[in-house]
Amino acid sequence: MIELYHHGSSVCSAKVRFVLMEKGLEWTGRYLDILKGEHFNPDYLKLNPMAVVPTLVHDGEVLVESTVICEYLDDTFPARPLKPHAPLGRARMRLWKAVDEHLQPACKYITYAACHRHIIARLPPDKLEQYMKGPESGAQTRVAGDPNWVDSKRAIVSMGLQAPGVAAKFRMYDDYLQKMENALTQHPWLVGDTFTLADIAMTPHVNRLDMLGMSEMWTRSRPHLTAWFTRVKARSTFQPCFLDYCPPDLTADLRTYGSQSWPEVKTILNA
Amino acid sequence: MIELYHHGSSVCSAKVRFVLMEKGLEWTGRYLDILKGEHFNPDYLKLNPMAVVPTLVHDGEVLVESTVICEYLDDTFPARPLKPHAPLGRARMRLWKAVDEHLQPACKYITYAACHRHIIARLPPDKLEQYMKGPESGAQTRVAGDPNWVDSKRAIVSMGLQAPGVAAKFRMYDDYLQKMENALTQHPWLVGDTFTLADIAMTPHVNRLDMLGMSEMWTRSRPHLTAWFTRVKARSTFQPCFLDYCPPDLTADLRTYGSQSWPEVKTILNA
Repeated sequence: MIELYHHGSSVCSAKVRFVLMEKGLEWTGRYLDILKGEHFNPDYLKLNPMAVVPTLVHDGEVLVESTVICEYLDDTFPARPLKPHAPLGRARMRLWKAVDEHLQPACKYITYAACHRHIIARLPPDKLEQYMKGPESGAQTRVAGDPNWVDSKRAIVSMGLQAPGVAAKFRMYDDYLQKMENALTQHPWLVGDTFTLADIAMTPHVNRLDMLGMSEMWTRSRPHLTAWFTRVKARSTFQPCFLDYCPPDLTADLRTYGSQSWPEVKTILNA
Repeated sequence: MIELYHHGSSVCSAKVRFVLMEKGLEWTGRYLDILKGEHFNPDYLKLNPMAVVPTLVHDGEVLVESTVICEYLDDTFPARPLKPHAPLGRARMRLWKAVDEHLQPACKYITYAACHRHIIARLPPDKLEQYMKGPESGAQTRVAGDPNWVDSKRAIVSMGLQAPGVAAKFRMYDDYLQKMENALTQHPWLVGDTFTLADIAMTPHVNRLDMLGMSEMWTRSRPHLTAWFTRVKARSTFQPCFLDYCPPDLTADLRTYGSQSWPEVKTILNA
């Protein structure tokens, strides 16, 4: 039995759902509303002490870290492989794990700066303060690698896109889109002629920008990436995996606030 | 033919050397003195546009990113395997890739704050300024994920261990040592009864602290980690891989300046 603890707008959750659906596996979803803090429930912390989604439970074995989970699922269920067979192809595919180091931590900066700061501003003052402090000050989550996130979050809420670090994160996204464009100039999918875990790893990030109304980052100047994302969206798994799981009010907020932010983001990218 | 572009004190280079030696593979070293900026030579930038070490060239194929290279070597040369056979074991092993996201970027902070700031302070003023600016402002290296490193480096040179972010990086190392201790309480190696790429990934980081004279971070309170590191150091590959490749003057500087920093680090960790 496969259980997935996940959330609709988490890029890492989406990666694992994408693998499950592409491989045609049966799975049971355990939905956690992370915007309501359900990932801090004591029962969930026993499974995932870092208080992040997703967590996969397969026949009682608990697995965390989306990139590790994706490769585990592909190793465990060899039908419909999502990895190249040859070691060199696998290495080229794993290079895109860079998203774990760079884009994944950057994603929360761009999402907060372009959208979430407006959503949390609706909270009553005491709830807002509790939310801002978060549990990131705890020892367990200290290992999660961004000890400055609480301070950064405060700066983003008060300064928006002008907060320190935010512009650099948008430029990093822009650099990765160019890396994708360069790779896709050579072959239809990121590491060759077949759809792999590399395409799966990058899709939630491109989709995040798309849902924020920022698709101009590729539609005007990156034709191969534009064609790639059109092909990704045409897969039967895309709509159920990425769009149906995102709560409608969040989808609307991402679009509304993201589009409002786009002119300022464009100025950052053109600077 | 296997060629490795590497440097003696680079933690990521050491990981790949460790794999090559543990698997008993023939390889040719291409040594780059990164403290003299040899990784910015135009010929090297063609192989590795990010200007980082290591780079592996195997029969003409260029591979970057040490974790990817290590798994590539193990996939390509199946003798003396360094991965568990079962998918679950492989997943448990890959979880330690967290070093790429957390410890690897933190390593330069602790190394600069405890040692390298003293080494580069010996440079004449114009050379120092050139070194401080570095090439990190270029677009290629922007993708490397730490757009603030130039500013951080300046702060570290002037403020040492009191520079913003440095204390948090030492605490992160301390947290990882505890994670290792917890795992090693259950089995002799990090993911079970056999030595794997997980042990290889963590060794350069523990060794860095050891060379900085900071082994008290485990010898006093983490007996399983202490026993693990003793076993690692007893492997015939350890001395040639980790100690012989580190230039003697750098080994001496790490020990001298690191030991001088230790009391202040201890205060940080006890705070």
